[in-house]
Amino acid sequence: MPISNIILRNPTHYKYYTKLSVFNSLSKASRLFAKRNVSTKQMEFPCLDKLEAITKQLKEKQQKQTLKIDKLQQCIDPVYSNIKTGYQIYESKVPLYSDFGGVLPNPWQIAYETWGTLNKERSNAILLHTGLSASSHAHSTKQNPVSGWWENFIGPNNPCLDTNKYFVICTNVLGGCYGSTGPKSIDPTNTSSKDINKRYATRFPMLSIQDIIRAQHQMIKEFFLIDKLYASVGSSMGGMQSLAYGVEFPNELEKIVSVSGCARSHPSSIAMRHAQRQVLMADPHWNRGYYYNEIIPHVGMKLAREIATVTYRSGPEWESRFGNERLDDERQPMLCPDFLIENYLDHQGEKFALEYDANSFLYLSKTMDLFDLSLSFQKRGLRKRTSLVQNNGICSNESCVVEQNQGLEEKPVKRKRSSTVEEARIDLQKGLQPLASKDLLVIGVKTDGLFPYWQQREIVDLVSSDTNYSGKIKHIELDESQSLYGHDTFLLDLENIGKEIGKFLTKN
Amino acid sequence: MPISNIILRNPTHYKYYTKLSVFNSLSKASRLFAKRNVSTKQMEFPCLDKLEAITKQLKEKQQKQTLKIDKLQQCIDPVYSNIKTGYQIYESKVPLYSDFGGVLPNPWQIAYETWGTLNKERSNAILLHTGLSASSHAHSTKQNPVSGWWENFIGPNNPCLDTNKYFVICTNVLGGCYGSTGPKSIDPTNTSSKDINKRYATRFPMLSIQDIIRAQHQMIKEFFLIDKLYASVGSSMGGMQSLAYGVEFPNELEKIVSVSGCARSHPSSIAMRHAQRQVLMADPHWNRGYYYNEIIPHVGMKLAREIATVTYRSGPEWESRFGNERLDDERQPMLCPDFLIENYLDHQGEKFALEYDANSFLYLSKTMDLFDLSLSFQKRGLRKRTSLVQNNGICSNESCVVEQNQGLEEKPVKRKRSSTVEEARIDLQKGLQPLASKDLLVIGVKTDGLFPYWQQREIVDLVSSDTNYSGKIKHIELDESQSLYGHDTFLLDLENIGKEIGKFLTKN
Repeated sequence: MPISNIILRNPTHYKYYTKLSVFNSLSKASRLFAKRNVSTKQMEFPCLDKLEAITKQLKEKQQKQTLKIDKLQQCIDPVYSNIKTGYQIYESKVPLYSDFGGVLPNPWQIAYETWGTLNKERSNAILLHTGLSASSHAHSTKQNPVSGWWENFIGPNNPCLDTNKYFVICTNVLGGCYGSTGPKSIDPTNTSSKDINKRYATRFPMLSIQDIIRAQHQMIKEFFLIDKLYASVGSSMGGMQSLAYGVEFPNELEKIVSVSGCARSHPSSIAMRHAQRQVLMADPHWNRGYYYNEIIPHVGMKLAREIATVTYRSGPEWESRFGNERLDDERQPMLCPDFLIENYLDHQGEKFALEYDANSFLYLSKTMDLFDLSLSFQKRGLRKRTSLVQNNGICSNESCVVEQNQGLEEKPVKRKRSSTVEEARIDLQKGLQPLASKDLLVIGVKTDGLFPYWQQREIVDLVSSDTNYSGKIKHIELDESQSLYGHDTFLLDLENIGKEIGKFLTKN
Repeated sequence: MPISNIILRNPTHYKYYTKLSVFNSLSKASRLFAKRNVSTKQMEFPCLDKLEAITKQLKEKQQKQTLKIDKLQQCIDPVYSNIKTGYQIYESKVPLYSDFGGVLPNPWQIAYETWGTLNKERSNAILLHTGLSASSHAHSTKQNPVSGWWENFIGPNNPCLDTNKYFVICTNVLGGCYGSTGPKSIDPTNTSSKDINKRYATRFPMLSIQDIIRAQHQMIKEFFLIDKLYASVGSSMGGMQSLAYGVEFPNELEKIVSVSGCARSHPSSIAMRHAQRQVLMADPHWNRGYYYNEIIPHVGMKLAREIATVTYRSGPEWESRFGNERLDDERQPMLCPDFLIENYLDHQGEKFALEYDANSFLYLSKTMDLFDLSLSFQKRGLRKRTSLVQNNGICSNESCVVEQNQGLEEKPVKRKRSSTVEEARIDLQKGLQPLASKDLLVIGVKTDGLFPYWQQREIVDLVSSDTNYSGKIKHIELDESQSLYGHDTFLLDLENIGKEIGKFLTKN
């Protein structure tokens, strides 16, 4: 029977839908509303109201501070009022040529803090690498008594990094915004007359993880006069750096600790970071990176951080903490934050939006995507440096000021693509061969969705299955009974992560 | 030794960084660029250029089409040029009172399509539920020969839904934009003089999954005159609907199939959908839902879809398909799509942005978040309908036109929060008790991150461990060797999903 021939039955037989309540007790507000002649109330958007209010506040603040910039003619941070202070500065007298063809002219600088004392032999230094958005302030200091991002993991007799034994150095990564040279810094070669126009913004060179650790290495050797680190320790992006340091300078460190890191970025992680970048870049206030004398892209930053937070924590933790409870179960659902979990994400995003520079976030996020210790990738980076040698370039202390646009013409060598997964595996194993004699501690967390456990297993498998490997490798994998905190576990778990690092560092 | 006392060693000893290439062969473009006096080239943003071009195109298109609306005085879709056609319309003569206190005045409508023939006994009907963004066009028809979203799963002698045996009905969900009443529809009670101002936009009532299936049920009973469905089949959001249909109308269907669905939304899934909504709502063109006579929020939609795509597919699939290969390994990395995976996401987002209504997306995304078959949640919804009965409301065919603002004053009963995970489990088990005599097929996919496998296990455990359960339950879980396609597996895998559904439907 064709459906169009079915006759519509009188719907009154259909009890359930034909009940109609008497509309006899309207409040005043509702009666007023009734005049608008719509069937359902306009939804409210308190979250958008709030964002608009923040934009207004920033505009007012900005207007005041722009005056200040003009007056003082110096680089101040217009908005990041809570920027970390109390760090020291290392300033380079030579330019840095990035793997991807850009150049960072000198003077560029690294912000650093230290804890403990460097021994006479200069053999007890630990270089601590941070995650993407952290400052050098890993622990409180006299200069800055605010708690650091790894406060419970560092200190005298601390089970993780014992400052009675070790001299701990932490830097703000190159490209960051807490004192080290990054996109919001002044380009010393820029001859613009206005201070604000001299900032790099999106004329900052794209950095590789290797560029970042080479800059650190330069500081370690040249400034701290340390020939060999006792250990390189890092988590997340810091876990990438820690491995890269070992691969790049295998004879200049004893031990390597890499927590929740990887040896090459995985497309799922790239996809999540891609989403964050695109969301931030879609904020009209981002303005292709040129917002330093305008309103910062706080909406885009907030949204990017909310997406990031989803990748930092884990479902099982949220299940027990938030479930699917709403803020107010009696209120009509709305599109603005309504569930406890939404409120949590909203809060995380809002906090971060005014604390970190959007361009630093974009650049470093991409730097993470580009991380790959495969031999083909490393070779590719080396080409540029080889050509510098071939050109017989020698520079004195003075002549090392970079010439205009140098390196712009350099094209990276085309990388030979691995045609199979197995080929890619071998390429990566070859890239890790410099670690052949090193002691390694690799830690992964089962609930980590951003750097999933199999990426740490990959490091361990590739290093330990290499026939030339003569070091000791320890692999720890925290299961759900040990941690529900996903990728963020390294910030929280002194017992399963901190103590294990301490043990590994102590052992011979 | 205090660090500040370390003397900066002459960097010339530090060979690696002091090499300087001679800058002797500049191209013309580069020489021009050199005049700008910056150290590194300005990054390019082709992705933003493209979005701006699309905005411009839409504006031009919009200007032409707005004229058309004014002239024809009818509801046309200004942008969704490829909107599905060839569906039939069921129109309700009674209002729909939503669980959350809103009301959809009649006439509201459901777009549907059918395949196969309804037998004389009206006992061979299968109601097929869609995912969030699909239309009623599950399979090609005479009226619309374009392939449907489940083209390979339906047809004469098809191993999944055999149209020689079954009469398959698929609807566009209420709240959608492919023919069913949704936010872009005209509110019949709105007395505004301008057609465009009559559209619901964000005055559309928030719907529950139960509201959606009650609307379908009304159509099935009243229009198709079917007292009992042979089966309710659905995946993703459709998997929620399929279960809800069984819980709400246990005596009016034989079998239930729920693929990659769940019995209540999990905070991780809420978090991912929250991110998509906030990103879309931050697009200035969204304009709090009032964009129907303006430029649609295509940038926000694109971004939301990119985030969604990350949740639809799986890491292992992407690893083998995209790895970390870039579009062009020789080019300097940029913040616009650069890796293969980024290009894929960009393309997925762009396509969807012009195909689906932003408000429909927002509302239905929230509807999914609010889904919970726990008894406490169901009771809460029932209150309103009970009060309608208590008010002794009776309506004839004509008087059922809803009165202005009816239901706005109704506040849902406060739901008793489960204080422990175990209490929440029992609450959900009680909610599923109406399924006690039903045959169920529940399918999950190990690589699904959005509706993870343990959510399907939860359904199976709760139903089968109930002492009153007398039906047959079948649980299939596809592991990585069977499917790498994550949540999207249900759209692709005829072998492991389609055939299993067919078998389940055939068995007595």
